[in-house]
Amino acid sequence: METISLEDAKRVVAAAEKKAADIGCPMDIAVVDGGGNLKAFVRMDDAFLGSVDIAINKAFTAVAFKMPTEDLAKAAQVGEPIFGINTTNDGRVVIFGGGVPLRRGGDIVGAVGVSTGTVPQDQEVAEAGAAAF
Amino acid sequence: METISLEDAKRVVAAAEKKAADIGCPMDIAVVDGGGNLKAFVRMDDAFLGSVDIAINKAFTAVAFKMPTEDLAKAAQVGEPIFGINTTNDGRVVIFGGGVPLRRGGDIVGAVGVSTGTVPQDQEVAEAGAAAF
Amino acid sequence: METISLEDAKRVVAAAEKKAADIGCPMDIAVVDGGGNLKAFVRMDDAFLGSVDIAINKAFTAVAFKMPTEDLAKAAQVGEPIFGINTTNDGRVVIFGGGVPLRRGGDIVGAVGVSTGTVPQDQEVAEAGAAAF
Amino acid sequence: METISLEDAKRVVAAAEKKAADIGCPMDIAVVDGGGNLKAFVRMDDAFLGSVDIAINKAFTAVAFKMPTEDLAKAAQVGEPIFGINTTNDGRVVIFGGGVPLRRGGDIVGAVGVSTGTVPQDQEVAEAGAAAF
Repeated sequence: METISLEDAKRVVAAAEKKAADIGCPMDIAVVDGGGNLKAFVRMDDAFLGSVDIAINKAFTAVAFKMPTEDLAKAAQVGEPIFGINTTNDGRVVIFGGGVPLRRGGDIVGAVGVSTGTVPQDQEVAEAGAAAF
Repeated sequence: METISLEDAKRVVAAAEKKAADIGCPMDIAVVDGGGNLKAFVRMDDAFLGSVDIAINKAFTAVAFKMPTEDLAKAAQVGEPIFGINTTNDGRVVIFGGGVPLRRGGDIVGAVGVSTGTVPQDQEVAEAGAAAF
Repeated sequence: METISLEDAKRVVAAAEKKAADIGCPMDIAVVDGGGNLKAFVRMDDAFLGSVDIAINKAFTAVAFKMPTEDLAKAAQVGEPIFGINTTNDGRVVIFGGGVPLRRGGDIVGAVGVSTGTVPQDQEVAEAGAAAF
Repeated sequence: METISLEDAKRVVAAAEKKAADIGCPMDIAVVDGGGNLKAFVRMDDAFLGSVDIAINKAFTAVAFKMPTEDLAKAAQVGEPIFGINTTNDGRVVIFGGGVPLRRGGDIVGAVGVSTGTVPQDQEVAEAGAAAF
Protein backbone atom coordinates (compact mmCIF):
# COMPACT_ATOMS: atom_id res chain seq x y z
CA MET A 1 0.00 0.00 0.00
CA GLU A 2 2.77 2.42 -1.00
CA THR A 3 2.04 5.30 -3.37
CA ILE A 4 5.71 5.25 -4.34
CA SER A 5 8.10 2.32 -3.85
CA LEU A 6 11.56 2.69 -2.35
CA GLU A 7 12.98 1.45 -5.64
CA ASP A 8 11.24 4.31 -7.45
CA ALA A 9 12.35 6.81 -4.81
CA LYS A 10 15.97 5.68 -5.07
CA ARG A 11 15.91 6.05 -8.85
CA VAL A 12 14.63 9.64 -8.45
CA VAL A 13 17.31 10.43 -5.85
CA ALA A 14 20.06 8.90 -8.01
CA ALA A 15 19.04 10.93 -11.06
CA ALA A 16 18.97 14.10 -8.99
CA GLU A 17 22.37 13.30 -7.48
CA LYS A 18 23.83 12.75 -10.94
CA LYS A 19 22.49 16.10 -12.19
CA ALA A 20 23.79 17.85 -9.06
CA ALA A 21 27.24 16.36 -9.68
CA ASP A 22 27.09 17.37 -13.36
CA ILE A 23 26.41 21.00 -12.50
CA GLY A 24 28.96 20.96 -9.68
CA CYS A 25 26.55 21.77 -6.86
CA PRO A 26 26.11 19.27 -4.00
CA MET A 27 22.49 19.07 -2.86
CA ASP A 28 20.14 17.82 -0.20
CA ILE A 29 17.58 15.63 -1.99
CA ALA A 30 14.33 14.28 -0.54
CA VAL A 31 11.49 12.13 -1.86
CA VAL A 32 8.11 11.95 -0.13
CA ASP A 33 5.10 9.76 -0.91
CA GLY A 34 1.54 10.80 -1.74
CA GLY A 35 0.80 11.41 1.93
CA GLY A 36 3.73 13.82 2.26
CA ASN A 37 5.74 11.35 4.34
CA LEU A 38 9.51 10.94 3.81
CA LYS A 39 10.54 7.97 1.72
CA ALA A 40 14.23 8.63 0.90
CA PHE A 41 16.81 11.32 1.55
CA VAL A 42 20.47 12.06 0.91
CA ARG A 43 22.68 14.99 1.86
CA MET A 44 25.54 15.07 -0.62
CA ASP A 45 28.98 15.93 0.76
CA ASP A 46 29.31 19.72 1.26
CA ALA A 47 25.58 20.34 0.84
CA PHE A 48 23.97 22.68 3.39
CA LEU A 49 22.88 21.47 6.85
CA GLY A 50 20.07 24.01 6.73
CA SER A 51 18.82 22.47 3.53
CA VAL A 52 17.93 19.12 5.12
CA ASP A 53 14.71 20.70 6.37
CA ILE A 54 14.18 22.72 3.19
CA ALA A 55 14.57 19.79 0.80
CA ILE A 56 12.21 17.61 2.83
CA ASN A 57 9.66 20.38 3.13
CA LYS A 58 9.85 21.42 -0.52
CA ALA A 59 8.84 17.85 -1.33
CA PHE A 60 6.10 17.98 1.33
CA THR A 61 4.84 21.29 -0.08
CA ALA A 62 4.67 20.00 -3.67
CA VAL A 63 2.44 17.14 -2.50
CA ALA A 64 0.45 19.22 -0.04
CA PHE A 65 -0.59 21.76 -2.68
CA LYS A 66 -0.27 19.56 -5.79
CA MET A 67 2.02 21.93 -7.65
CA PRO A 68 5.71 22.76 -8.05
CA THR A 69 6.87 25.02 -5.23
CA GLU A 70 7.95 27.59 -7.82
CA ASP A 71 4.29 28.05 -8.80
CA LEU A 72 3.29 28.53 -5.19
CA ALA A 73 6.02 31.15 -4.84
CA LYS A 74 4.42 33.52 -7.30
CA ALA A 75 1.13 33.70 -5.39
CA ALA A 76 2.89 34.02 -2.02
CA GLN A 77 4.80 37.22 -2.80
CA VAL A 78 4.14 40.43 -0.90
CA GLY A 79 0.77 41.80 -1.91
CA GLU A 80 -0.22 38.61 -3.73
CA PRO A 81 -3.26 36.47 -2.77
CA ILE A 82 -1.64 33.92 -0.48
CA PHE A 83 1.07 36.04 1.10
CA GLY A 84 1.71 34.43 4.48
CA ILE A 85 1.07 30.81 3.46
CA ASN A 86 4.64 29.88 4.43
CA THR A 87 3.80 30.25 8.12
CA THR A 88 0.96 27.69 7.92
CA ASN A 89 1.39 23.93 8.42
CA ASP A 90 3.85 24.49 11.28
CA GLY A 91 6.21 26.34 8.96
CA ARG A 92 6.59 23.38 6.58
CA VAL A 93 5.44 25.29 3.46
CA VAL A 94 8.40 26.35 1.31
CA ILE A 95 7.58 29.09 -1.18
CA PHE A 96 10.43 28.97 -3.65
CA GLY A 97 11.42 26.58 -6.40
CA GLY A 98 12.97 23.15 -6.00
CA GLY A 99 9.95 21.01 -5.08
CA VAL A 100 8.42 19.06 -7.97
CA PRO A 101 5.49 16.60 -7.92
CA LEU A 102 5.92 13.01 -9.10
CA ARG A 103 3.01 11.85 -11.26
CA ARG A 104 1.70 8.44 -12.23
CA GLY A 105 -0.93 8.82 -14.92
CA GLY A 106 -2.76 11.98 -13.90
CA ASP A 107 -2.22 11.47 -10.17
CA ILE A 108 0.38 13.03 -7.91
CA VAL A 109 1.86 10.14 -5.96
CA GLY A 110 4.82 11.88 -4.35
CA ALA A 111 7.34 14.67 -4.84
CA VAL A 112 11.04 15.40 -4.91
CA GLY A 113 12.59 18.36 -3.09
CA VAL A 114 16.07 19.76 -3.66
CA SER A 115 18.00 22.46 -1.81
CA THR A 116 21.47 24.03 -1.43
CA GLY A 117 22.01 25.67 -4.82
CA THR A 118 20.46 28.72 -6.36
CA VAL A 119 16.75 28.32 -6.91
CA PRO A 120 17.21 27.64 -10.65
CA GLN A 121 19.84 25.00 -9.79
CA ASP A 122 17.54 23.39 -7.21
CA GLN A 123 14.74 23.38 -9.74
CA GLU A 124 16.93 21.88 -12.48
CA VAL A 125 18.08 19.08 -10.19
CA ALA A 126 14.55 18.38 -8.93
CA GLU A 127 13.27 18.18 -12.51
CA ALA A 128 16.06 15.75 -13.39
CA GLY A 129 14.95 13.62 -10.46
CA ALA A 130 11.31 13.77 -11.46
CA ALA A 131 12.16 12.88 -15.06
CA ALA A 132 13.59 9.57 -13.84
CA PHE A 133 10.33 8.59 -12.12
CA MET B 1 -22.98 24.75 27.00
CA GLU B 2 -21.98 24.68 23.31
CA THR B 3 -21.74 27.98 21.40
CA ILE B 4 -22.48 26.05 18.25
CA SER B 5 -24.12 22.63 18.08
CA LEU B 6 -22.79 19.78 15.96
CA GLU B 7 -26.08 19.88 14.05
CA ASP B 8 -25.45 23.54 13.19
CA ALA B 9 -21.83 22.81 12.28
CA LYS B 10 -22.84 19.97 9.98
CA ARG B 11 -25.36 22.20 8.20
CA VAL B 12 -22.62 24.78 7.61
CA VAL B 13 -20.22 22.12 6.31
CA ALA B 14 -22.89 20.62 4.05
CA ALA B 15 -23.73 24.00 2.51
CA ALA B 16 -20.05 24.71 1.92
CA GLU B 17 -19.56 21.27 0.39
CA LYS B 18 -22.48 21.82 -1.95
CA LYS B 19 -21.12 25.18 -3.10
CA ALA B 20 -17.65 23.67 -3.58
CA ALA B 21 -19.16 20.94 -5.75
CA ASP B 22 -21.19 23.52 -7.69
CA ILE B 23 -18.08 25.54 -8.57
CA GLY B 24 -16.07 22.38 -9.29
CA CYS B 25 -13.41 22.92 -6.65
CA PRO B 26 -13.02 20.30 -3.87
CA MET B 27 -12.25 21.95 -0.54
CA ASP B 28 -11.07 21.40 3.01
CA ILE B 29 -13.84 22.78 5.23
CA ALA B 30 -13.65 23.39 8.99
CA VAL B 31 -16.04 24.75 11.60
CA VAL B 32 -14.85 25.95 15.01
CA ASP B 33 -16.90 27.09 17.98
CA GLY B 34 -16.74 30.36 19.93
CA GLY B 35 -13.66 29.11 21.76
CA GLY B 36 -11.83 28.57 18.48
CA ASN B 37 -11.89 24.80 18.98
CA LEU B 38 -12.63 22.40 16.12
CA LYS B 39 -16.22 21.19 15.88
CA ALA B 40 -16.43 19.59 12.42
CA PHE B 41 -14.15 19.04 9.44
CA VAL B 42 -14.16 17.40 6.04
CA ARG B 43 -11.51 17.07 3.36
CA MET B 44 -13.33 16.56 0.07
CA ASP B 45 -11.78 14.07 -2.35
CA ASP B 46 -8.88 15.70 -4.24
CA ALA B 47 -8.70 18.72 -1.92
CA PHE B 48 -5.20 19.72 -0.76
CA LEU B 49 -3.46 17.94 2.14
CA GLY B 50 -1.78 21.23 3.00
CA SER B 51 -5.19 22.86 3.36
CA VAL B 52 -6.26 20.74 6.33
CA ASP B 53 -4.20 23.01 8.55
CA ILE B 54 -5.15 26.16 6.64
CA ALA B 55 -8.93 25.55 6.71
CA ILE B 56 -8.90 24.81 10.44
CA ASN B 57 -6.74 27.83 11.17
CA LYS B 58 -8.71 30.20 8.96
CA ALA B 59 -11.71 29.32 11.12
CA PHE B 60 -9.61 29.73 14.27
CA THR B 61 -8.35 33.11 13.05
CA ALA B 62 -11.84 34.42 12.24
CA VAL B 63 -12.93 33.69 15.82
CA ALA B 64 -9.64 34.74 17.39
CA PHE B 65 -9.78 38.22 15.89
CA LYS B 66 -13.55 38.48 15.35
CA MET B 67 -13.34 39.30 11.65
CA PRO B 68 -13.18 37.59 8.28
CA THR B 69 -9.60 36.57 7.50
CA GLU B 70 -9.74 38.68 4.33
CA ASP B 71 -10.05 41.79 6.50
CA LEU B 72 -7.10 40.74 8.59
CA ALA B 73 -5.09 40.27 5.41
CA LYS B 74 -5.21 43.93 4.50
CA ALA B 75 -3.72 45.04 7.81
CA ALA B 76 -1.03 42.33 7.72
CA GLN B 77 0.62 43.39 4.47
CA VAL B 78 4.16 44.73 4.39
CA GLY B 79 4.28 48.21 5.90
CA GLU B 80 0.79 47.88 7.38
CA PRO B 81 0.05 48.05 11.12
CA ILE B 82 0.01 44.35 12.02
CA PHE B 83 2.59 43.04 9.58
CA GLY B 84 3.94 39.84 11.15
CA ILE B 85 0.79 38.76 12.98
CA ASN B 86 0.81 35.45 11.06
CA THR B 87 3.79 34.25 13.08
CA THR B 88 1.99 34.70 16.42
CA ASN B 89 -0.20 32.06 18.09
CA ASP B 90 2.21 29.28 17.12
CA GLY B 91 1.69 30.11 13.45
CA ARG B 92 -2.07 29.52 13.56
CA VAL B 93 -3.03 32.97 12.20
CA VAL B 94 -3.93 32.83 8.49
CA ILE B 95 -3.86 36.18 6.72
CA PHE B 96 -5.81 35.58 3.54
CA GLY B 97 -9.50 35.12 2.77
CA GLY B 98 -11.59 32.03 3.40
CA GLY B 99 -12.30 32.30 7.14
CA VAL B 100 -15.72 33.75 7.99
CA PRO B 101 -17.32 34.28 11.43
CA LEU B 102 -20.62 32.65 12.32
CA ARG B 103 -22.95 35.05 14.14
CA ARG B 104 -25.99 34.58 16.33
CA GLY B 105 -27.66 37.91 17.00
CA GLY B 106 -24.72 40.27 17.24
CA ASP B 107 -22.36 37.68 18.70
CA ILE B 108 -19.68 35.65 16.99
CA VAL B 109 -20.26 32.07 18.12
CA GLY B 110 -17.93 30.28 15.75
CA ALA B 111 -16.42 30.40 12.27
CA VAL B 112 -16.04 28.45 9.06
CA GLY B 113 -12.71 28.12 7.25
CA VAL B 114 -12.25 26.92 3.67
CA SER B 115 -9.09 26.18 1.68
CA THR B 116 -7.82 24.62 -1.58
CA GLY B 117 -9.21 26.97 -4.22
CA THR B 118 -8.20 30.47 -5.18
CA VAL B 119 -8.81 32.95 -2.39
CA PRO B 120 -12.05 34.22 -4.01
CA GLN B 121 -13.25 30.62 -4.36
CA ASP B 122 -12.40 29.85 -0.74
CA GLN B 123 -14.24 32.99 0.33
CA GLU B 124 -17.30 32.20 -1.78
CA VAL B 125 -17.55 28.70 -0.32
CA ALA B 126 -17.03 29.92 3.25
CA GLU B 127 -19.78 32.52 2.77
CA ALA B 128 -22.13 29.84 1.45
CA GLY B 129 -21.40 27.84 4.57
CA ALA B 130 -21.96 30.82 6.85
CA ALA B 131 -25.24 31.66 5.10
CA ALA B 132 -26.62 28.27 6.12
CA PHE B 133 -25.96 28.94 9.79
CA MET C 1 -5.78 9.27 -5.60
CA GLU C 2 -7.44 8.97 -2.18
CA THR C 3 -6.76 5.95 0.04
CA ILE C 4 -10.16 6.56 1.65
CA SER C 5 -13.01 8.56 0.14
CA LEU C 6 -14.93 11.22 2.04
CA GLU C 7 -18.05 9.12 1.55
CA ASP C 8 -16.34 6.21 3.31
CA ALA C 9 -15.03 8.48 6.05
CA LYS C 10 -18.47 9.93 6.68
CA ARG C 11 -19.98 6.46 6.97
CA VAL C 12 -17.35 5.56 9.59
CA VAL C 13 -17.99 8.77 11.53
CA ALA C 14 -21.76 8.27 11.39
CA ALA C 15 -21.52 4.72 12.72
CA ALA C 16 -19.24 5.87 15.54
CA GLU C 17 -21.58 8.75 16.37
CA LYS C 18 -24.55 6.37 16.52
CA LYS C 19 -22.70 4.02 18.88
CA ALA C 20 -21.62 6.95 21.06
CA ALA C 21 -25.23 8.09 21.30
CA ASP C 22 -26.37 4.54 22.08
CA ILE C 23 -23.98 4.27 25.03
CA GLY C 24 -24.75 7.81 26.16
CA CYS C 25 -21.24 9.19 25.82
CA PRO C 26 -20.60 12.09 23.41
CA MET C 27 -17.28 11.69 21.60
CA ASP C 28 -14.68 13.39 19.44
CA ILE C 29 -14.35 11.22 16.32
CA ALA C 30 -11.66 11.50 13.65
CA VAL C 31 -10.86 9.64 10.43
CA VAL C 32 -7.45 9.87 8.74
CA ASP C 33 -6.31 8.42 5.41
CA GLY C 34 -3.43 6.02 4.73
CA GLY C 35 -0.91 8.86 4.95
CA GLY C 36 -2.13 9.82 8.42
CA ASN C 37 -3.78 13.01 7.17
CA LEU C 38 -7.18 14.14 8.50
CA LYS C 39 -10.15 13.32 6.30
CA ALA C 40 -13.19 13.93 8.57
CA PHE C 41 -13.87 14.98 12.15
CA VAL C 42 -16.78 15.72 14.47
CA ARG C 43 -16.92 16.84 18.08
CA MET C 44 -20.29 15.77 19.44
CA ASP C 45 -22.06 18.19 21.77
CA ASP C 46 -20.57 17.98 25.28
CA ALA C 47 -17.54 15.96 24.16
CA PHE C 48 -14.17 17.09 25.54
CA LEU C 49 -12.21 19.98 23.98
CA GLY C 50 -9.02 18.22 24.97
CA SER C 51 -10.08 15.19 23.01
CA VAL C 52 -10.00 16.96 19.63
CA ASP C 53 -6.23 16.44 19.58
CA ILE C 54 -6.44 12.98 21.12
CA ALA C 55 -9.03 11.63 18.68
CA ILE C 56 -7.10 12.94 15.66
CA ASN C 57 -3.81 11.59 16.99
CA LYS C 58 -5.22 8.21 17.97
CA ALA C 59 -6.21 7.83 14.32
CA PHE C 60 -2.76 9.07 13.22
CA THR C 61 -1.08 6.61 15.58
CA ALA C 62 -3.09 3.63 14.34
CA VAL C 63 -1.93 4.37 10.77
CA ALA C 64 1.60 5.32 11.76
CA PHE C 65 2.25 2.01 13.51
CA LYS C 66 -0.30 -0.17 11.69
CA MET C 67 -2.03 -1.40 14.82
CA PRO C 68 -4.81 -0.44 17.23
CA THR C 69 -3.53 2.06 19.80
CA GLU C 70 -4.53 -0.36 22.55
CA ASP C 71 -1.89 -2.81 21.29
CA LEU C 72 0.75 -0.09 21.30
CA ALA C 73 -0.21 0.75 24.88
CA LYS C 74 0.90 -2.59 26.25
CA ALA C 75 4.44 -2.24 24.93
CA ALA C 76 4.70 1.39 26.04
CA GLN C 77 4.12 0.80 29.75
CA VAL C 78 6.80 1.54 32.31
CA GLY C 79 9.58 -1.00 32.00
CA GLU C 80 8.25 -2.34 28.71
CA PRO C 81 10.23 -2.26 25.42
CA ILE C 82 8.97 0.99 23.89
CA PHE C 83 8.38 3.03 27.04
CA GLY C 84 8.75 6.63 25.90
CA ILE C 85 7.36 6.24 22.37
CA ASN C 86 4.59 8.74 23.18
CA THR C 87 7.08 11.61 23.15
CA THR C 88 8.22 10.84 19.58
CA ASN C 89 6.58 12.24 16.44
CA ASP C 90 6.15 15.66 18.07
CA GLY C 91 3.96 14.13 20.76
CA ARG C 92 1.40 12.81 18.28
CA VAL C 93 1.66 9.17 19.44
CA VAL C 94 -1.25 8.22 21.72
CA ILE C 95 -0.63 5.10 23.78
CA PHE C 96 -4.06 4.05 24.95
CA GLY C 97 -7.05 2.51 23.24
CA GLY C 98 -9.48 4.22 20.89
CA GLY C 99 -7.52 4.28 17.62
CA VAL C 100 -8.39 1.51 15.17
CA PRO C 101 -7.03 0.89 11.65
CA LEU C 102 -9.35 0.78 8.64
CA ARG C 103 -8.48 -2.07 6.27
CA ARG C 104 -9.26 -2.76 2.62
CA GLY C 105 -8.23 -6.29 1.76
CA GLY C 106 -5.05 -6.78 3.73
CA ASP C 107 -3.99 -3.12 3.56
CA ILE C 108 -4.40 -0.41 6.16
CA VAL C 109 -5.86 2.54 4.25
CA GLY C 110 -6.78 4.80 7.16
CA ALA C 111 -7.89 4.79 10.77
CA VAL C 112 -10.57 6.05 13.13
CA GLY C 113 -9.79 7.66 16.47
CA VAL C 114 -12.26 8.27 19.30
CA SER C 115 -11.86 10.11 22.59
CA THR C 116 -13.82 11.53 25.57
CA GLY C 117 -15.12 8.37 27.25
CA THR C 118 -13.36 5.73 29.26
CA VAL C 119 -10.82 3.82 27.22
CA PRO C 120 -13.17 0.83 26.79
CA GLN C 121 -15.92 3.21 25.63
CA ASP C 122 -13.57 4.92 23.18
CA GLN C 123 -12.49 1.53 21.88
CA GLU C 124 -16.06 0.29 21.50
CA VAL C 125 -17.08 3.37 19.55
CA ALA C 126 -13.98 3.24 17.34
CA GLU C 127 -14.67 -0.40 16.55
CA ALA C 128 -18.27 0.43 15.65
CA GLY C 129 -16.92 3.05 13.26
CA ALA C 130 -14.40 0.66 11.74
CA ALA C 131 -17.07 -2.02 11.30
CA ALA C 132 -19.00 0.34 9.01
CA PHE C 133 -16.02 0.78 6.67
CA MET D 1 34.71 18.80 6.23
CA GLU D 2 32.24 15.95 6.60
CA THR D 3 32.50 13.66 9.62
CA ILE D 4 30.88 10.95 7.55
CA SER D 5 30.74 10.88 3.74
CA LEU D 6 27.57 10.12 1.81
CA GLU D 7 29.38 7.10 0.39
CA ASP D 8 29.93 5.80 3.94
CA ALA D 9 26.36 6.59 4.93
CA LYS D 10 24.98 4.73 1.91
CA ARG D 11 27.07 1.68 2.76
CA VAL D 12 25.66 1.69 6.30
CA VAL D 13 22.09 2.07 5.01
CA ALA D 14 22.59 -0.71 2.43
CA ALA D 15 23.93 -3.12 5.06
CA ALA D 16 21.01 -2.32 7.35
CA GLU D 17 18.54 -2.75 4.49
CA LYS D 18 20.04 -6.13 3.64
CA LYS D 19 19.77 -7.31 7.25
CA ALA D 20 16.19 -6.04 7.48
CA ALA D 21 15.31 -8.00 4.33
CA ASP D 22 17.07 -11.09 5.70
CA ILE D 23 15.01 -11.05 8.91
CA GLY D 24 11.82 -10.22 6.99
CA CYS D 25 11.11 -6.92 8.69
CA PRO D 26 11.00 -3.73 6.56
CA MET D 27 12.57 -0.80 8.41
CA ASP D 28 13.03 2.94 8.47
CA ILE D 29 16.80 3.53 8.47
CA ALA D 30 18.60 6.82 9.12
CA VAL D 31 22.23 7.90 9.27
CA VAL D 32 23.30 11.16 10.90
CA ASP D 33 26.74 12.76 11.01
CA GLY D 34 28.80 13.83 14.02
CA GLY D 35 26.69 16.97 14.31
CA GLY D 36 23.53 14.91 14.64
CA ASN D 37 22.30 16.13 11.25
CA LEU D 38 20.62 13.79 8.76
CA LYS D 39 22.88 12.40 6.07
CA ALA D 40 20.83 9.57 4.51
CA PHE D 41 17.45 7.94 5.03
CA VAL D 42 15.26 5.25 3.53
CA ARG D 43 11.79 4.00 4.42
CA MET D 44 11.54 0.45 3.12
CA ASP D 45 8.21 -0.56 1.59
CA ASP D 46 5.69 -1.42 4.35
CA ALA D 47 7.83 0.09 7.13
CA PHE D 48 5.97 2.31 9.61
CA LEU D 49 5.18 5.97 8.84
CA GLY D 50 5.57 6.71 12.55
CA SER D 51 9.08 5.31 12.45
CA VAL D 52 10.44 7.99 10.10
CA ASP D 53 10.71 10.30 13.07
CA ILE D 54 11.88 7.56 15.44
CA ALA D 55 14.66 6.24 13.18
CA ILE D 56 16.03 9.73 12.56
CA ASN D 57 15.85 10.60 16.23
CA LYS D 58 17.38 7.34 17.44
CA ALA D 59 20.39 8.24 15.31
CA PHE D 60 20.33 11.80 16.66
CA THR D 61 20.12 10.51 20.22
CA ALA D 62 23.05 8.11 19.80
CA VAL D 63 25.25 11.02 18.68
CA ALA D 64 23.77 13.50 21.13
CA PHE D 65 24.60 11.37 24.17
CA LYS D 66 27.47 9.32 22.68
CA MET D 67 25.95 5.95 23.47
CA PRO D 68 23.58 3.38 21.99
CA THR D 69 19.98 4.33 22.70
CA GLU D 70 19.50 1.01 24.49
CA ASP D 71 22.00 2.16 27.14
CA LEU D 72 20.17 5.42 27.56
CA ALA D 73 16.93 3.49 28.04
CA LYS D 74 18.09 1.86 31.24
CA ALA D 75 18.84 5.18 32.94
CA ALA D 76 15.59 6.75 31.72
CA GLN D 77 13.22 4.31 33.39
CA VAL D 78 10.91 5.38 36.20
CA GLY D 79 12.90 6.01 39.36
CA GLU D 80 16.22 6.02 37.50
CA PRO D 81 18.56 9.01 37.34
CA ILE D 82 17.51 10.57 34.03
CA PHE D 83 13.83 9.70 34.01
CA GLY D 84 12.16 12.31 31.78
CA ILE D 85 15.08 12.91 29.40
CA ASN D 86 12.87 11.91 26.45
CA THR D 87 10.94 15.15 26.75
CA THR D 88 14.06 17.32 26.36
CA ASN D 89 15.51 18.49 23.04
CA ASP D 90 12.03 19.19 21.63
CA GLY D 91 11.12 15.53 22.12
CA ARG D 92 13.92 14.26 19.88
CA VAL D 93 15.45 11.93 22.49
CA VAL D 94 14.44 8.29 21.94
CA ILE D 95 14.93 6.02 24.95
CA PHE D 96 14.78 2.53 23.50
CA GLY D 97 17.15 0.47 21.42
CA GLY D 98 17.88 0.85 17.71
CA GLY D 99 20.25 3.82 17.66
CA VAL D 100 23.95 2.91 17.41
CA PRO D 101 26.99 5.22 17.18
CA LEU D 102 29.37 5.03 14.22
CA ARG D 103 33.01 5.20 15.33
CA ARG D 104 36.24 6.03 13.53
CA GLY D 105 39.19 5.23 15.75
CA GLY D 106 37.92 6.13 19.22
CA ASP D 107 35.67 8.93 17.97
CA ILE D 108 31.95 8.93 17.38
CA VAL D 109 31.49 10.47 13.95
CA GLY D 110 27.83 9.66 13.38
CA ALA D 111 25.10 7.15 14.15
CA VAL D 112 22.57 4.86 12.55
CA GLY D 113 18.96 4.64 13.74
CA VAL D 114 16.48 1.91 12.86
CA SER D 115 12.77 1.54 13.62
CA THR D 116 9.64 -0.51 12.77
CA GLY D 117 10.49 -3.94 14.23
CA THR D 118 10.66 -5.11 17.80
CA VAL D 119 13.41 -3.39 19.75
CA PRO D 120 15.76 -6.40 19.41
CA GLN D 121 15.11 -6.44 15.65
CA ASP D 122 15.77 -2.71 15.37
CA GLN D 123 18.98 -3.15 17.36
CA GLU D 124 20.15 -6.09 15.22
CA VAL D 125 19.60 -4.17 12.01
CA ALA D 126 21.29 -1.04 13.37
CA GLU D 127 24.31 -3.11 14.43
CA ALA D 128 24.49 -4.67 10.98
CA GLY D 129 24.54 -1.16 9.53
CA ALA D 130 27.21 0.01 11.96
CA ALA D 131 29.35 -3.05 11.22
CA ALA D 132 29.55 -1.97 7.58
CA PHE D 133 31.00 1.43 8.50
